[in-house]
Amino acid sequence: MKLPLGFQAGAVRAGIKPSGNPDLALLHAEAPLAWAYVATTNRAAAPCVLRGRALLASEAPLRALVVNAGNANAATGEAGVAADLRMAELAAERLGVRPDEVLTASTGVIGVPLPVDRIATALPALVLGPDADSFAEAILTTDTRTKLAEATLPGGARVVGVAKGSGMIHPNMATMFGFLFTDARVDQTELRARWPEVVRGTFNQVTVDGDTSTNDMAAIFASGLAGQVSPGLFWDAVAAVARDLARQIAADGEGATKLISVRVVGAASLADARRAARAVAGSLLWKAAVYGNDPNWGRILAALGYSGALLDAGRVRIELEGIPLYDGAPLPFDHEVAVRAMQKAEVRVLADLRQGDYEAEAWGSDLTEGYVRINAEYTT
Amino acid sequence: MKLPLGFQAGAVRAGIKPSGNPDLALLHAEAPLAWAYVATTNRAAAPCVLRGRALLASEAPLRALVVNAGNANAATGEAGVAADLRMAELAAERLGVRPDEVLTASTGVIGVPLPVDRIATALPALVLGPDADSFAEAILTTDTRTKLAEATLPGGARVVGVAKGSGMIHPNMATMFGFLFTDARVDQTELRARWPEVVRGTFNQVTVDGDTSTNDMAAIFASGLAGQVSPGLFWDAVAAVARDLARQIAADGEGATKLISVRVVGAASLADARRAARAVAGSLLWKAAVYGNDPNWGRILAALGYSGALLDAGRVRIELEGIPLYDGAPLPFDHEVAVRAMQKAEVRVLADLRQGDYEAEAWGSDLTEGYVRINAEYTT
Repeated sequence: MKLPLGFQAGAVRAGIKPSGNPDLALLHAEAPLAWAYVATTNRAAAPCVLRGRALLASEAPLRALVVNAGNANAATGEAGVAADLRMAELAAERLGVRPDEVLTASTGVIGVPLPVDRIATALPALVLGPDADSFAEAILTTDTRTKLAEATLPGGARVVGVAKGSGMIHPNMATMFGFLFTDARVDQTELRARWPEVVRGTFNQVTVDGDTSTNDMAAIFASGLAGQVSPGLFWDAVAAVARDLARQIAADGEGATKLISVRVVGAASLADARRAARAVAGSLLWKAAVYGNDPNWGRILAALGYSGALLDAGRVRIELEGIPLYDGAPLPFDHEVAVRAMQKAEVRVLADLRQGDYEAEAWGSDLTEGYVRINAEYTT
Repeated sequence: MKLPLGFQAGAVRAGIKPSGNPDLALLHAEAPLAWAYVATTNRAAAPCVLRGRALLASEAPLRALVVNAGNANAATGEAGVAADLRMAELAAERLGVRPDEVLTASTGVIGVPLPVDRIATALPALVLGPDADSFAEAILTTDTRTKLAEATLPGGARVVGVAKGSGMIHPNMATMFGFLFTDARVDQTELRARWPEVVRGTFNQVTVDGDTSTNDMAAIFASGLAGQVSPGLFWDAVAAVARDLARQIAADGEGATKLISVRVVGAASLADARRAARAVAGSLLWKAAVYGNDPNWGRILAALGYSGALLDAGRVRIELEGIPLYDGAPLPFDHEVAVRAMQKAEVRVLADLRQGDYEAEAWGSDLTEGYVRINAEYTT
């Protein structure tokens, strides 16, 4: 997938991932980038997140993004802070920009020193080009596929997004990375005013395992080279790309065989709609039921009930793949038909709380023996 | 295990559990019982919980407790409310007490009408006696063993507890029941003032899968027949019995092979200590690591970090089975020794947040392929 105007990217093998796959990704902009950034709420946030927040506070534009996968450089003490800064300096040197113009991101194992020397050795061999694909591949960890999405605005400006997900995915800000690049001209103030709300409705509505990573981040970068765009159309495009990536992350959750999509309508507030949808998407019991093709709607109702959203079980309505299962009381339904309806790559739940006019979506993955195996046998 | 003075209990097969095991339990007190009660925060709470709360609000004493297992009578609409009341009436008739002196509790499948006629048929055959064992057995669902605990105070007053934990018969939540019975003379006002705090530190610190049931309840009943006791010694005994039951529930979580015990010290507040301990005990990634004997302390630190508790990753200290793994930065440790230390029925984590003087415990179970199978491969 081509990057928008003004961006170049590339990747190389630095030997950080044990697999030997490409693990160091670099993005470079020919001109200063307006940007916005949301990162994990985890109090054990990694040095890259602490540094990213400091860069954000400076209000200065960026010129580059360097990402390594295979090592989160989290819980690595003072040495980790130094390693993160060194990664920025090495990227800056390679590109001829200043270190404080380079955003860093790390994902992978926690608590192991980041081998910055390998980054130093590998960077000179990294070749930049107009495609996002090698970048998207190098940032993956246990993901089974790359995650890319795009939208084109009238006039030709584009929004391109890349993401990684897989495990430790429960953004409040998962380790989840979501990076969006656009050549639309958007003021940094506007980017920062509206990006967090896009993230709340998309990346933050994904849950794989309820574990909020130390390294999550979602950022958007604008080169401005394609000129002005309609703000309405622009933000719709950004939300669509972010939503597409969020769904790809959930569908590729560790061990997942299915995407679970939950849509809650009729909530008393937007926050209620979001927490209710997230609770269902994240319920272990519902996730296991989806894996087993069990139309066990009691687990959906229970999750709605403990979500914290205002509701009355006597008024809630639940549909699974368009089949009404509960409407204030259990509805009769054909069990075999419902089981068959669940045998697909995406299983959709619709819940109407009948409390108000707000709605939201959330996405999760089914819980499988594969998830347990991946996470029980993963060795540091 | 003998019940305290003034209590009798018994159980019978009513045909609610598909297994045909005893599934209807009855407790009777010869004199009015002071009592206290804490129930689920789930907004889709079952009729038994709604009724229990109403009885609690009346401040009146109780004379009996009737429990069925195999059917939660939750999400059953108005018919469910009537069935719950009918269960109380049937028990009252059997015992010669009033229906509003009978607390009800149901656990099992959600969304299926409770077959009250079977309860009516079975109750006459139920024999009451001085032992808690048949009661403790009949309230189980997918639990693999009965859960009983006791403490004796100087002077002979006793506290006896029975509990059930994660169960699943058709859909199900990890519905938890904790019932404590004592013959100590304790004022109902005092019982109600202090019982919720005991529950917060014990039953509420257990997590199996993060799914809060529609039917959870923890109650204590005092007959007073053994006379006055020292309040300090009494509450210590109650907390010890509740803690013992909480640990039994966690150890017998669905598919569990190990108990995970987490102790957090040095927290800035009691609430922080509890949420930090719960986050580690409930982390899917840590639960899977425990199953796999992987001393992956980064997952512990990440869970502490997202728990909401105040902390600084640069000051946290983590020990696993007494082995220091992290102290503001990774510590060198013998990986093979740590792996071997994890190969036991209880795996203990100690985390010092170094923020204050508060501490708490929490308990969970490891995440296994068995959990997934139990909850995905149920067959109707």
